[in-house]
Amino acid sequence: MAELVPVEPFDIVVFGATGDLALRKLIPALFHRWCDGQITEDSRIIAAARDTMSDEAFRELAATHIVDKSMSDERRKSWTSFTQLIRYTALDVSRDGEDWNDLKAAMDPNEDKIRLYYLALPPSIYGSVCAGLARQSLNSWNARIVLEKPIGSNYHTAREINDKVGEVFRENNIFRIDHYLGKETVQNLLILRFANYLFEPLWNANGIDHVQITVAETLGAGKRATYYDRSGALRDMVQNHLLQLACLVAMEPPESLEADSVRTEKLKVLKALRPITAATVPNDVVRGQYQAGAVDGEKVPGYAEEVGHDTDTETFVSIRAMVDNWRWAGVPFYMRTGKCMASRRSEIIVQFKEIPHDIVGVAKGTLHPNRLVIRLQPDEGVKLMLMTKDPGPGGLRLRYVPLNLSYAEHFEADYPDAYERLLMAVVRGNLSLFMRRDEVEAAWRWVDGIIQAWDEGQAKLYGYQAGSDGPTQSALMLDRESREWFDGLSR
Amino acid sequence: MAELVPVEPFDIVVFGATGDLALRKLIPALFHRWCDGQITEDSRIIAAARDTMSDEAFRELAATHIVDKSMSDERRKSWTSFTQLIRYTALDVSRDGEDWNDLKAAMDPNEDKIRLYYLALPPSIYGSVCAGLARQSLNSWNARIVLEKPIGSNYHTAREINDKVGEVFRENNIFRIDHYLGKETVQNLLILRFANYLFEPLWNANGIDHVQITVAETLGAGKRATYYDRSGALRDMVQNHLLQLACLVAMEPPESLEADSVRTEKLKVLKALRPITAATVPNDVVRGQYQAGAVDGEKVPGYAEEVGHDTDTETFVSIRAMVDNWRWAGVPFYMRTGKCMASRRSEIIVQFKEIPHDIVGVAKGTLHPNRLVIRLQPDEGVKLMLMTKDPGPGGLRLRYVPLNLSYAEHFEADYPDAYERLLMAVVRGNLSLFMRRDEVEAAWRWVDGIIQAWDEGQAKLYGYQAGSDGPTQSALMLDRESREWFDGLSR
Repeated sequence: MAELVPVEPFDIVVFGATGDLALRKLIPALFHRWCDGQITEDSRIIAAARDTMSDEAFRELAATHIVDKSMSDERRKSWTSFTQLIRYTALDVSRDGEDWNDLKAAMDPNEDKIRLYYLALPPSIYGSVCAGLARQSLNSWNARIVLEKPIGSNYHTAREINDKVGEVFRENNIFRIDHYLGKETVQNLLILRFANYLFEPLWNANGIDHVQITVAETLGAGKRATYYDRSGALRDMVQNHLLQLACLVAMEPPESLEADSVRTEKLKVLKALRPITAATVPNDVVRGQYQAGAVDGEKVPGYAEEVGHDTDTETFVSIRAMVDNWRWAGVPFYMRTGKCMASRRSEIIVQFKEIPHDIVGVAKGTLHPNRLVIRLQPDEGVKLMLMTKDPGPGGLRLRYVPLNLSYAEHFEADYPDAYERLLMAVVRGNLSLFMRRDEVEAAWRWVDGIIQAWDEGQAKLYGYQAGSDGPTQSALMLDRESREWFDGLSR
Repeated sequence: MAELVPVEPFDIVVFGATGDLALRKLIPALFHRWCDGQITEDSRIIAAARDTMSDEAFRELAATHIVDKSMSDERRKSWTSFTQLIRYTALDVSRDGEDWNDLKAAMDPNEDKIRLYYLALPPSIYGSVCAGLARQSLNSWNARIVLEKPIGSNYHTAREINDKVGEVFRENNIFRIDHYLGKETVQNLLILRFANYLFEPLWNANGIDHVQITVAETLGAGKRATYYDRSGALRDMVQNHLLQLACLVAMEPPESLEADSVRTEKLKVLKALRPITAATVPNDVVRGQYQAGAVDGEKVPGYAEEVGHDTDTETFVSIRAMVDNWRWAGVPFYMRTGKCMASRRSEIIVQFKEIPHDIVGVAKGTLHPNRLVIRLQPDEGVKLMLMTKDPGPGGLRLRYVPLNLSYAEHFEADYPDAYERLLMAVVRGNLSLFMRRDEVEAAWRWVDGIIQAWDEGQAKLYGYQAGSDGPTQSALMLDRESREWFDGLSR
């Protein structure tokens, strides 16, 4: 890994600091960047949450997610020094009270210093937080606000939130985070496409048969069931993660990697998505809900059981999306995501066309089309599937083998978590990995179309056994077009 | 490795059986195929050479190149059983004597049995051998003759030899062997090109910048110096090996891998080679001769010293060849071969075009074009060079990395030597890995053009130090076009 250049000193306020995201992801991410020397001592981490707590108490709470017995002495020392950056301030963001003064007092009074506000909070209170920051004039020119998904639950609520945040922060200071975009392999997708000559001439309807995007979780809704029941898989995963990945696969080459160039190209893809209507939804979308089953050998209750009553919310959705532009005419983008699936994995599969003519004359079923597999998790990596000759003195036999570009193999160092990369990008003011307002809204428009089609009575919900690959109908959707879902690991 | 299907029983007569090729390559190749169960017990190996010798004496001579102390007991048993297939017969091929009767007596009288005549002899006596076989009526319909390169020393002598062999054997029974075509990676080149969609759309002047073919030896002419001095690198290596490799890279997709389909496509490439003339030879061809130096730390005498007198023969040649057809217009095929070079390696490098526009904005010299490296020896393998993102939390850094399709990595079994594969192909009557008469002659026509250009006074001979990469002029030839020779191992 190349030498790390420290970022400029900054103050970060983590709203919702006692929540899961803050404790499991954000504080550890900052700590790792500290250990690598990327954060300087004059930075401050201000943890804000409702509970009253001393700085020390919060540091100890944070430590429970980071410090363990196996930690080296050096690392333990780093933790001690790191905690000196952390302060805790109690804040009820919904009220305009003294709390806000305390928050301001905890921050560096230097208005030119980079300020980050990380809203690890429900979107419904984004507006209150922005208003509070504005009242204290904490929205200085160098202040950046980080918004977690979901931004709203449809186009209109997304606009409302964006409007409220936009009253206090300029669009260029708003960082709508999608941690999938912080994955190494996702960023590498752009480099593979645009720093290599090899792929781009084939990267269109002439060269690509179809694209598959899978985001499968093995976990169920569990404790989040009540919250989750208000959104479902389409709103929770497709609107943001899956559509963002589809955009990166489908977008035209931007003129540069500068944020607005990339975001404009992604927006064009979202706008080109063919609307799904009441007429097309039965063919193009499959809704599913998991029923009791077993995942990894563990018995799992059904979703309705977890929620506590019958519910129509989907925990699985698979979609056949079309991008109506010159490049992608006729190329389906199959997307699926679900909970309680057979295996946990997120991957993009680009399936190239079949060869037009078999000169080898091998047995049917022996020739497989080329395939690019971009795996986001659990093992980040890229592999290219090729047909090659099976070595040996017998007759000509072919084999389908992977050319692996696995990070573990080629690169020595551990590479950082997506949140680490994204947090540093915010400090640097690099917006290219974050969604612009119009992107979020365009994604909602398309998703709203599907929800409307469902509301018009085409919302058939299929059960699937927990620990399976989703409802059979999802497989049938591809089967109708003589295709099948792939598991990037297999073959 | 898949199950091996034994080939049909056959009789092989190895002419020149006491020579280097027979002892070091052919007999061991047959032995290995025996060990793998590919040769049945009713096959015969008839070793023919001038010396008088018993079967047992020849078996012992052959054993010195195969049996050693480290050999397992099982392998040793196999050797003993294998030797039962071997008979020796003394034969002076240049005379029409009793010897020929002895040869016939050693063979299975069944005319339908597959017969192989392997001519491990100088081409000047190919005619005598064919005449002898004809007199004994040994050119039965199922008899196949294998000819080693060089077939002649120019177009006219090649025609003479082909005519003489053609009087006795039908073209479909003539196997002109080039062991380079028996290499796994060379055959895999066809599979990579034609069993994958990925490469073919780029495999032309739009996608490929240039092609490099290097066949570098570290050995000097040594004991062969006197023989070699009559041919030189152009006749000895370019006319056959390098042009054949160029054909496989450049040819159009054949309708099948059936021998004449492939050979017709190769012929088209040879015919499309732009003739090199007295006017173009100074720019497009570099001749070199090694001078005293050191290879792998060992002192090496100069070539003239080895020959014993001043000589104008080239031990190195590099050529800028153009294939004048639609596919390859403007794409140079750089070929080079030499003795006493810095490293022993044979490889084909396909350099793709540079990306048309850099969206990443990286430092100059950071972006490298994609490259496919097909290595024939010493380590057979294919690798594809790609630009990828260097993982890490810092700014965007790119790296040029190989996707390896190394045989050792993906395939468990040892794979056979080129001669093993080619001998079995002869038994099967599969001509696709062998040169047709018109190919050999077309290659000579083009090579003759270069020799004629040299004869017209443009045959400047550059010295190069043994252990170097050849004369500087070879590097300058590419430098004039802003290119450079690559070593497939590096980067």
